[in-house]
Order: sequence, then structure tokens, then C-alpha cells
Amino acid sequence: MTLKVIAYARNGHTDKFGIPRQSREESPILTRIVFEPEFAIPEALRGIEGYSHLWILWGFLEQHKTCIKPADNKDESTISWSPTVRPPRLGGNKRMGVFATRSPFRPNPLGLSSVKLVGIEGGDLIVSGADVLDGTPIYDIKPYLSFSDSHPDAKNGFAEETKDYRLEVDWGMCSPDYLSKTDRHWTENEPKTDRQWVDEVEYILCQDPRPGYQNDPEREYKMDYAGWRVTFKVLENKVLVQKIEQIL
Amino acid sequence: MTLKVIAYARNGHTDKFGIPRQSREESPILTRIVFEPEFAIPEALRGIEGYSHLWILWGFLEQHKTCIKPADNKDESTISWSPTVRPPRLGGNKRMGVFATRSPFRPNPLGLSSVKLVGIEGGDLIVSGADVLDGTPIYDIKPYLSFSDSHPDAKNGFAEETKDYRLEVDWGMCSPDYLSKTDRHWTENEPKTDRQWVDEVEYILCQDPRPGYQNDPEREYKMDYAGWRVTFKVLENKVLVQKIEQIL
Repeated sequence: MTLKVIAYARNGHTDKFGIPRQSREESPILTRIVFEPEFAIPEALRGIEGYSHLWILWGFLEQHKTCIKPADNKDESTISWSPTVRPPRLGGNKRMGVFATRSPFRPNPLGLSSVKLVGIEGGDLIVSGADVLDGTPIYDIKPYLSFSDSHPDAKNGFAEETKDYRLEVDWGMCSPDYLSKTDRHWTENEPKTDRQWVDEVEYILCQDPRPGYQNDPEREYKMDYAGWRVTFKVLENKVLVQKIEQIL
Repeated sequence: MTLKVIAYARNGHTDKFGIPRQSREESPILTRIVFEPEFAIPEALRGIEGYSHLWILWGFLEQHKTCIKPADNKDESTISWSPTVRPPRLGGNKRMGVFATRSPFRPNPLGLSSVKLVGIEGGDLIVSGADVLDGTPIYDIKPYLSFSDSHPDAKNGFAEETKDYRLEVDWGMCSPDYLSKTDRHWTENEPKTDRQWVDEVEYILCQDPRPGYQNDPEREYKMDYAGWRVTFKVLENKVLVQKIEQIL
């Protein structure tokens, strides 16, 4: 089967570093789904406003893959998939079967995320909680059906132990309000609320964007998001923000 | 993106008539997922036994589509998708946007089902609750993560009103035990328990396999499943089984 791109995701994740590892209900991160001309047909969305959640099926970008290594140490540029992978949350040194993970190194590099439907604007869908890069191609959008898709008591295998892992954010000398003074707009016509950017960046830092369980309190990390570069260190359970710069 | 078939689904649904419209937790219908040689690598499943539920991403077969008509009355053989479709559960005469439905007439004919992992046998996965035809190609298998995939309170749009719809089964003169006397085996080595076939057929009939809301109590329907042909009528909320035959 050959897939056609029906839409692209647009959000602040211009860099793979910082993308939450799974979509989460509570994520404040907004993504705009912009349909390709052939599929931008208002009728194709009729009735979608009755659903609170949607599925998006999307494609991993090469850029996304370069932040995660497959388990077999092959050169990433020559492999498309690997029978085992090293999930970052297991410290990056335990191998799991690719079908027991959501790794991008799959036989077919398809991603699956449940998102909240926030609104419909000029034919675009606005959703929250998508764990995708800006520019990600989308292949399908389906309604979420609680009676067939929801299994709150499902056993989460090796992912169980990491599901509630969360850091605190200490903004230190940096005022998060600086982020709210951005000129960047969500769309030409409609700026996000000032607070929205602060909430998004704080949420991303809470999720611990460090690769694997790197644990060097002196190490500085840089994360680009929505036109900002945030420099931070991590000491125990705390993210210490060092610097916020605007990227031109 | 061009997708490779990684596995095929094998189950009793040799005919599209009778396939439940969505996967359901309580479905007793077993499906065996048989990997293609290139992907039949035991290591690729390492750790999967820790999950109770999985996602399968699969492709709609032409055969599957012929039981459901798109809304625009075009000849089915010439169309690949349609901006609006008529969901069978809405009586087949109300149009909804394709992205607000799970219709097979999508720009990319991908299906998505959450299934229960029942076991692993000789490299095959045995799952229950897959709403797919025998022979359906599978493109990806992912673990179900309750903390990101489960939204029990999601609003189900127009699908809400139909979610608890269920018929009773009256076996009449036909002994369901006749089904259990089948010679058909689940695998060469391992027959299903006798009762399994009866449970599967009863479950399918409960789900009301009639197209749309056809409501002619005199009309006889025939459903083929796992080598059996079951003839039935529907009177009000009851399925009246008329005949059970073995198909050669």
C-alpha cells in the first residue's frame, strides 16, 4: 500500500529534542492540522465536532529518528528497522522487541497518537497532546471511540514503571514571562494567549527531555521550541533553567 | 510512504458479512497473527508478553469494502475514498464526514484495532477482538499504553447512541452444539476448544450483522464463518437461527 499525505502537523516542536515520548491527555501543547489541498474539504469533517478525542496516524521523519538509536549499533542512516531497540526510558541499555515498543525504527515507520480535539478553524483541526515534530506528515484521522479504544486497566509491560515519572521546573533567574512576550503567532490572525507558550515549555521540561537516563548535573542541555532556545541543567528531580534566548 | 505487509490475520471471518463493526474488549473471536518470513523474528516480540492489549494497523481489503456503500453513490469499483460516508449504524441514509467515521472509504485505507493479547504460539500472536477479515494484511503492531491511549470518558459523537446495541440469540431448532462437533481445527496441532466456535458465532449474531437498519422479519440472512453457514432471521430484538450447515 502506498500512502498519500493528507495533512501536515504544525506546532512549536521545530527540534526533535523535547518532544514528549508519548501523547498525554494533560499535554497543553497545541498542534494545528493543515490539510493538503486535495483533502481540504469541509464536508470530510462533518460530525467530527461531536468527538472529544481523535486518532492521528502519522509518519516518523528522519529527523525524529536521529535522536534515538536502534539496539544493534548499525549506522542509523543505513537501517530502516531493527528487531530490537533500546527504549530511552529503560536507560538506553536494555533491548526490547520492536513490536513491544513505540520506537520509530519499525518495519513501517508509522506513528499513532490519541489527541484531544480543541477546535476547528478555517478547515484546520486544532488538537492538543500530539507528540509529533512540526511538519510531520499525517496519513489518517479517525474518531476515538471509548467503547472500543479505551482500556484503562491495560497492563503496560515495561512502560509501567515510567508512566508517572515527572520533573519539577525551577525557572531560577529566568522569568518565564519573557516567553510570553514573544512576537511569534499561532496563526497570522490569531496569536496564542501569552500564557500558552509558558505552559507548553514548562510541560516539555517536566517530561524530562534528556536522552535516556543521562545523569550529569553539570551538563547543559539546549532545547529549541517555537522560536525559543531554553538552556537547562537537571539536578535530581529538578530542571534548573539557565537561559532563555530568542532564535532568529 | 510505501508499506510492507509484516503479517496476515487468520480467523474464521472468511466472509465480510458478520464482522463486528468495531473491535470490542469482550469479543471471544480469536485471530492468529502470522508473520511474513522477513519479520518472523522471535526477538522482535521480546517483552510483548508484558502487555495485555496491542494495537494492530491493517489494510482494508476490497472484499471488505463491498459490503458498505460510500455516500456519493459512485460506482464502488472506481472510487477509493469519499468526503462523506453513510455509517451503517445510522441507518445508511445520514452522511458524515469520512474523518468522523471509521469507514473503509478513506484516502488511505488503514484500519486500527485494539486487541487483547491472548498468547504467543510458535512465533504467532494470538489475539481476541480483532474486527478484521481472514487474510487481512497487517502493517504494524504496537503495545497499548493505558496512560496515553485510554480515555474512558471520551465523547463518542454520533456513535454514542449505538454503542450498547445488542440482540438476543434464539437457536430455535438448531443445536449450537452441532457447531462444536466441527472437524475444523484452529491450527494443525491444536484444535480450539469445542465451545469456542459456539461462543464466536453467538457473539457475531448478537452484534446484529444485518446491513444498516434493515428491518424485514421475513428476510433470511446467511452468514459464513469458520466453515459454517448460519441462516437466520431477525424479529425485533431477537436473532432466530433457522439452519446451520457445514460449507465444503
